Amino acid sequence: MGLDDSWFTEVDDDIKTAWSAKIRAKVYDRQTPYQHIEVFETEGLGYLMVIDGFTMVSTLENFLYHEMMAHPVLFTHQAPRQVAIIGGGDCGTLREVMRHPGVEHCVQIDIDEGVTEAARRFFPELCEANDDPRAELLFQDGIQWMKDAAPESLDVIIVDSTDPIGPGEVLFTPTFYRACHRALRPGGLIVQQSESPLAHMHILQRVRRGYREAGFDAVETLFFPQPIYPTGWWSATLGGKGQNPREFRETDARNKPFATRYYNADIHRGALAQPEFFREAMEKAEPA
Amino acid sequence: MGLDDSWFTEVDDDIKTAWSAKIRAKVYDRQTPYQHIEVFETEGLGYLMVIDGFTMVSTLENFLYHEMMAHPVLFTHQAPRQVAIIGGGDCGTLREVMRHPGVEHCVQIDIDEGVTEAARRFFPELCEANDDPRAELLFQDGIQWMKDAAPESLDVIIVDSTDPIGPGEVLFTPTFYRACHRALRPGGLIVQQSESPLAHMHILQRVRRGYREAGFDAVETLFFPQPIYPTGWWSATLGGKGQNPREFRETDARNKPFATRYYNADIHRGALAQPEFFREAMEKAEPA
Repeated sequence: MGLDDSWFTEVDDDIKTAWSAKIRAKVYDRQTPYQHIEVFETEGLGYLMVIDGFTMVSTLENFLYHEMMAHPVLFTHQAPRQVAIIGGGDCGTLREVMRHPGVEHCVQIDIDEGVTEAARRFFPELCEANDDPRAELLFQDGIQWMKDAAPESLDVIIVDSTDPIGPGEVLFTPTFYRACHRALRPGGLIVQQSESPLAHMHILQRVRRGYREAGFDAVETLFFPQPIYPTGWWSATLGGKGQNPREFRETDARNKPFATRYYNADIHRGALAQPEFFREAMEKAEPA
Repeated sequence: MGLDDSWFTEVDDDIKTAWSAKIRAKVYDRQTPYQHIEVFETEGLGYLMVIDGFTMVSTLENFLYHEMMAHPVLFTHQAPRQVAIIGGGDCGTLREVMRHPGVEHCVQIDIDEGVTEAARRFFPELCEANDDPRAELLFQDGIQWMKDAAPESLDVIIVDSTDPIGPGEVLFTPTFYRACHRALRPGGLIVQQSESPLAHMHILQRVRRGYREAGFDAVETLFFPQPIYPTGWWSATLGGKGQNPREFRETDARNKPFATRYYNADIHRGALAQPEFFREAMEKAEPA
C-alpha cells in the first residue's frame, strides 16, 4: 500500500493524513536564504510548487485559492483603491487584484524573491499582471513594511502567506494584525488564509481572536475548496475596520467586468455560509 | 518521500493524486460475494471503511457527506413521506433521513449486507436509526427493486452508491434512472453522488445527461467538501419530476427540528452556487 519515490507526499500532522501527487520530474530545487523551494512536473496537476515540503500551488487548481483570496475582500470594500499583499510571491493573487479596474495601486511584499523567480519560470500565467503599471513588487520583510506603512493609507490588506510555521508564523500574531489595523483607512478590510476548518480549528480561532485583539470590529470566515491542502477544504478570515465583512457589493460582483473560473456572486454568498459545527464552536469561543 | 505500509493509500487515476491515512491497525477484512470490505483504525480520523480499495466513510468527517445526501433533497421536496435509499449500506444517510418527522417510511436497499455488518460494529452511531419503525433495511439488488417498485410510489430516491466502477456502475445508467423516474410521484426528486467537479467532470455530465434522458425536467448540482475522496471536493446531482431542485423549503430548513453538524439553510443555498467553470461547461454541454 506504500507509495514509491515517484510521488511527492505531504503529511498533515493534525489529522495524520497525507496528500500525494505523481511526479514526472523535479524541475527546480533551490535553497534561498529563507526557505527551500521545489517545483515538480506532475502527471495530473501540471506544475506543483512546494516550499519547505508544503504544497503551495499547482497549475490545475490554484484558481480556487487565488480568486477566493482576492475577489471576496475586494467586492466587500466599498471602493478599494490602495491594496497591499503580504506574501503572495507566486503573484497569482496580484493577478486577480489587478482585474479590478478601480484599484489604483497594489503592492506585493514577499520576503523571498525566489518564489517569484520560480513562478515566472513555471507559472508564467500567474505573473501576467506583474508589469501592470499599478502593480509594485517588493522583496522585503512584510511585517516591517506594515509597521512602517503610513497610518490609514490602505483600503485592503491580503495576507497570502504560508502556514503559521517558519517565516510565515509572525503573520499570525496580534502584533502584525495591529500594524495592519493601523495602516487601514476607515472602512478598510483584511483577509488572511486561515487553514482547514476540519483539521486546524485552532488556527481559525487564533486568527479571529487576533483580529479582534487588534481592533477589527467585525470578523467573518470564508470557506472554499482547496484540493492540494490537507482535507481539501480551506478557509480565509475577513476582518473589517468599520465595515461589515458579511455585506458585499453583490450587484457589482454579478456584473464584474472580468472572467473568473470559480468566483461569482453566488459563490461569494455561499462561501459566507457557516457550517453548523463551526457556528457552534465560534459561539462557545466568542460569546456575544 | 514514499509512505510506508503503516498508511492506507487510495490513488485517483484521473488526476494522479493519492490520499493516505495513517493506520494503527486493520480491524476488519472480509470478502463478501460482492466486494472486499476493510475497516482500519486510523491515527486521526477514527475508523475508516474501505471497499475494493476505495475509501467510503471515516468517523471524523462522514457527517459532511451523509447530511448533504439527505437534507437538501428532503428540504426541496414539498412533503416527503416515502423515501428509498439505493446503496447506503453504512446506514449514515438513513439516519439523517429519519431525522425528518414527516417521513413515514424509508427503505434502504443495499446489495451487500456485509457493509451494514461492518457499520454496526465500527460505526454504531450511523446505525442509530436502523430500528426506527419507519426504517426498512433490504439486502438485495437495488436496480431490480427499483424496476419492480410500484409506479408513482416514492417521493424521494437517494442513490448513495460507490463510484461508477464495479457493482455501483449500473446505478449510473439511463435504464436505472428511467426506473427511478417511473417510481417517483409527481413532484418527486432523485439525488445521486456524482464525484469531484475538479477530477471527474465526465461523471457529473454523465449523471446530468442520464437524468434528462430518463425524463427529469430539471437538474441541479450540489457542491460540498468531502475530505477523504479525491480532491476533497464533491458533488451530488438532483433531478426533479415536476419540481425545480433550485427551490427549497428555506424557512423549514431554518427551523429544522433536529441538530446537524454541517447542513443548514445557508449551507444549502451555498451548495447550489455554481462555480464559473462548471456553469460554462454545462452551458456548452446542455445549450438552452
